[in-house]
Amino acid sequence: MTFAPPDLLRARVARLRRALEAASLDALVVSHLPNIFYFSNFSASAGVLVVGASRLYLLADFRYSAAIDALAADGWLPDEIEVGRVDGSYDQALVRALETGGWGPRVGFEGARVSVKQHGWLAARLATSGQPEGDGAAQADRSATAVALVSTDGLVEALRRRKDEYELDVLREAGRRLSAVARDVLHDVVVAGRSEQAIAADIDWRVRAAGFERPAFETIVASGPNAALPHAHAGERVTEACDLVVVDFGGVYRGYCVDLTRTVALGAPTERMIDLYRAVASAQDAALGRVRAGVPAHVVDAAARDRLAELGLGEAFGHGTGHGLGLEVHEEPRIGKRRPDDPPTELDAGMVCTIEPGAYLPGFGGVRLEDDVIVTPDGCEMITDVPRDAQLLSLT
Amino acid sequence: MTFAPPDLLRARVARLRRALEAASLDALVVSHLPNIFYFSNFSASAGVLVVGASRLYLLADFRYSAAIDALAADGWLPDEIEVGRVDGSYDQALVRALETGGWGPRVGFEGARVSVKQHGWLAARLATSGQPEGDGAAQADRSATAVALVSTDGLVEALRRRKDEYELDVLREAGRRLSAVARDVLHDVVVAGRSEQAIAADIDWRVRAAGFERPAFETIVASGPNAALPHAHAGERVTEACDLVVVDFGGVYRGYCVDLTRTVALGAPTERMIDLYRAVASAQDAALGRVRAGVPAHVVDAAARDRLAELGLGEAFGHGTGHGLGLEVHEEPRIGKRRPDDPPTELDAGMVCTIEPGAYLPGFGGVRLEDDVIVTPDGCEMITDVPRDAQLLSLT
Repeated sequence: MTFAPPDLLRARVARLRRALEAASLDALVVSHLPNIFYFSNFSASAGVLVVGASRLYLLADFRYSAAIDALAADGWLPDEIEVGRVDGSYDQALVRALETGGWGPRVGFEGARVSVKQHGWLAARLATSGQPEGDGAAQADRSATAVALVSTDGLVEALRRRKDEYELDVLREAGRRLSAVARDVLHDVVVAGRSEQAIAADIDWRVRAAGFERPAFETIVASGPNAALPHAHAGERVTEACDLVVVDFGGVYRGYCVDLTRTVALGAPTERMIDLYRAVASAQDAALGRVRAGVPAHVVDAAARDRLAELGLGEAFGHGTGHGLGLEVHEEPRIGKRRPDDPPTELDAGMVCTIEPGAYLPGFGGVRLEDDVIVTPDGCEMITDVPRDAQLLSLT
Repeated sequence: MTFAPPDLLRARVARLRRALEAASLDALVVSHLPNIFYFSNFSASAGVLVVGASRLYLLADFRYSAAIDALAADGWLPDEIEVGRVDGSYDQALVRALETGGWGPRVGFEGARVSVKQHGWLAARLATSGQPEGDGAAQADRSATAVALVSTDGLVEALRRRKDEYELDVLREAGRRLSAVARDVLHDVVVAGRSEQAIAADIDWRVRAAGFERPAFETIVASGPNAALPHAHAGERVTEACDLVVVDFGGVYRGYCVDLTRTVALGAPTERMIDLYRAVASAQDAALGRVRAGVPAHVVDAAARDRLAELGLGEAFGHGTGHGLGLEVHEEPRIGKRRPDDPPTELDAGMVCTIEPGAYLPGFGGVRLEDDVIVTPDGCEMITDVPRDAQLLSLT
């Protein structure tokens, strides 16, 4: 596997350091695993990265020692990284690192990633650090710095919103590969007489055979009436000749997620199916037509929503029009209705997101169409490429 | 799909209500999705359940309306549940529900599942609720109850630790099915000349074909030197004729997770491989021999750890001996070294856990063996059943 080149990691860390300085923070404790990967190429189910003005310190446990050595040997770790091994609990190791690391007094943490319980524990330990032990510990043991934990929000996510050229190339390649899987799958796998689960298992197999590390989320195969459930799991239902089938799947390629949905009719589609399909395709076109750097995300959402409402399907579309893609399959920007409490999100060049309106009619079925795009100064670049107009009709 | 019968859900809710009363709480906001499923059979990627003394209130958004209707129609929802639809943000809907629900003043939340950011937002909103609006809102709008949020820890997890008979039956069936997959896979799929990723994709396909909803975690296929990495992902490496291969995979069946590991040699194993394998098998036997209701979990861990240390492999075993299984693939009890700050965990009849010691020799490879057991008053009941002694030798 290849990773982001170390000079790119260095540039990302430098950007975070500028953000920390602007926020008057001496360091940031990065707990969110995709954020750790973003700066270090280190991917695991546990880990903590502390980023200070002049140090980059990764805490990891035994299970990952060999993986870290391998990354280092292949030149994929940042040059300046120091690795500390966790033998007991991560929180204990973190307190020790914060007390003795010379970071400075104001240490940020990721408020959306640290639980109330964990924060309570850390804050209590740090509050008592530097105080003399009851048994009269020597002065030397009390050299610990007093550290104040400061809740921060989205510092790293703000950096991750706009993808760099390396990331865009990975996402383009991922989009190409997922599209190829989709083209095959829609012809060969999504057929009548198979259970949704069996279809989903075949899709997942093909996603991996196409070079993805894993599916990006639990593959959705929703057939017949189940297609009216926007987030149906693949279930035991066996597809039938007159079904609409919504197929929504994704893959993780070199750490980056892509996501695609198509809807097909098994057998000759009815007029009502064709109308529903055309309405959703038209809503997707309307949204895609508004994507451009500088446009607020809720304007793109409204384009799809208004089009469906014009066609009498306003009530049938309850979810958002899209979401950002990157190291997570749902990340910023959210392409949805504007929330009164939140500032509007403006699209920016280099953002990558899905555009996926749908219409769901309980008892009848549903249609969703989803593609992935890169936001550009003039509009957008599609990174998925699967026939859409002919889809419903020609596969029958 | 079938679910826990509603009278069982009622009994679980009743147990939680007793726990709330003991903690002087008027209600609990359940945020953790497996905990919501435990009380309601409702499974989703978002949702909040509020459990009060006389109300059970589920918040869910548009995407799940049809799924909830289907659960209700099939009689799988608790009788007393009320469903509130979330149209904006969950947190806003939750504040409204807490202010107007008549729950009482002391409302617990799950401290390990709520982030510092989310808690800050909720607490700020609840603190200002009941105060007159600036535009002079009518008295009627100010009838809201003042609510204090109280951090709780593991209230629901404590109930989930001991499985009820329904859960044990599901887990037994899941163990049978996963064992059948393992027996096939080890003969047909784990062979020389295939990439780890290809082997993993085939395993996942078979897991689903065996009736599992999905793999329980990212399947590990670690071959040759990679077998020394306890948490290796399946990668691009192509297996070779002299490899040890660690295969660790699991499945989710009716919501419940099982997990199994075997290690095989491709081709004739060397003496060193055989010794390593026998050492780990012996450590697993030692740990299994100590599992019994009333035994502290760290004693079971020590049995495996001490055996490996006696055989000169103390340094080669860095992870814990096992973990609980249930609605999550890692849950209580943790079978590991005792942590000085934590009270010891005592095993109890009806707990379900893995026993999975391993030994990892960097540059050479590794062995891990994992089975799943139900803790009983007299020992344990194995719910996985895959040949182990002959494994390394006869498959070559």
